[in-house]
Amino acid sequence: MNSKFIVIEGLEGAGKTTAIQTVVETLKQYGISDLIFTREPGGTPLAEKLRQLIKQGIEGESLTDKAEVLMLYAARVQLVENVIKPALAKGTWVVGDRHDLSSQAYQGGGRGIDLNLMTSLREAALGDFCPDLTIYLDLPPEVGLQRARERGELDRIEKESLNFFHRTRERYLELVVKDDSIRTVDATQALEKVQDDIRHTLLNWLKDKIG
Amino acid sequence: MNSKFIVIEGLEGAGKTTAIQTVVETLKQYGISDLIFTREPGGTPLAEKLRQLIKQGIEGESLTDKAEVLMLYAARVQLVENVIKPALAKGTWVVGDRHDLSSQAYQGGGRGIDLNLMTSLREAALGDFCPDLTIYLDLPPEVGLQRARERGELDRIEKESLNFFHRTRERYLELVVKDDSIRTVDATQALEKVQDDIRHTLLNWLKDKIG
Repeated sequence: MNSKFIVIEGLEGAGKTTAIQTVVETLKQYGISDLIFTREPGGTPLAEKLRQLIKQGIEGESLTDKAEVLMLYAARVQLVENVIKPALAKGTWVVGDRHDLSSQAYQGGGRGIDLNLMTSLREAALGDFCPDLTIYLDLPPEVGLQRARERGELDRIEKESLNFFHRTRERYLELVVKDDSIRTVDATQALEKVQDDIRHTLLNWLKDKIG
Repeated sequence: MNSKFIVIEGLEGAGKTTAIQTVVETLKQYGISDLIFTREPGGTPLAEKLRQLIKQGIEGESLTDKAEVLMLYAARVQLVENVIKPALAKGTWVVGDRHDLSSQAYQGGGRGIDLNLMTSLREAALGDFCPDLTIYLDLPPEVGLQRARERGELDRIEKESLNFFHRTRERYLELVVKDDSIRTVDATQALEKVQDDIRHTLLNWLKDKIG
């Protein structure tokens, strides 16, 4: 049985953390217990340093959109080459909190970075490496941000305008309809129903791919 | 009179630091004293943090070639947008210790990163921004590395193999012959002669561009 890379995606407050727990429980019920987690940006010592610079910014210096996306890809290359690919190679499953789709949505959609640049960066950094399954938790930004605010202090990206998050969600949805390795779950539903949908989506996919 | 961006390039031990002093003295003799220095990677708080990560690496983690070049461009975007362009806009000259040509030579030539990727990265990060004049100090890597070793401890990049530096110099020379904003000075000559050549090159260029 080949190991797989499964990613959870969505806006702030979409419920990614709970979703990851549901994914792990479902995988274990399916007999898959050799697995690791990743989060992006981050997941290696260097990538975590880059995460901190991206999330917190630098006192007295504005972080340009281009430098932000270049640093995100630097962190992603380190994670993919040093953690994800070696894990998959030895049969370990990988469950990721965000991956490339986040950059396509937040930096490409939200920040409005040119689509050609986003495509070249992805191809240059990752080649044809991509997740086997992405579960995208969809909800309107108003709902997600309200939940994120209730959790506490917002970071540099979470402080963006509502329009930024609308553009981000729009790009998520645009990419979801083009890529059948991405399954959408309605994250506005009651928490229990969301988890049911994730479990159901994952089990169907596992039956199809693994048997 | 429009301010200009002048860059000094070359392998380790080519004499860039002395060359920059000569450039500054020559500019001052020409009546240009409103100037700043930059060094790459670096020159802003964020870019200096990236410089440290690139130069020293991270304990226990290998820095991939792709992450290295992405971080170099992130640092360069920050420097260009936050320091170089604002300085030029208010009439200040900029004298740079390395710029994009270094990435093209070291990462493109030395590391062998795909030329299309290097070109896309430069265009994506910098658009059509480029130095007005680059003075490239040419010498065989054996000579430069011997000088660099005599100066003390070598950093992560300076510890590369001799072949790496041969490929780097080869790419420098390949790019120099294609771009007439780059002037080459033979850095194997006696120090005094090298400085004479730099002065001469710069004065000719100033007469031509500034009058």
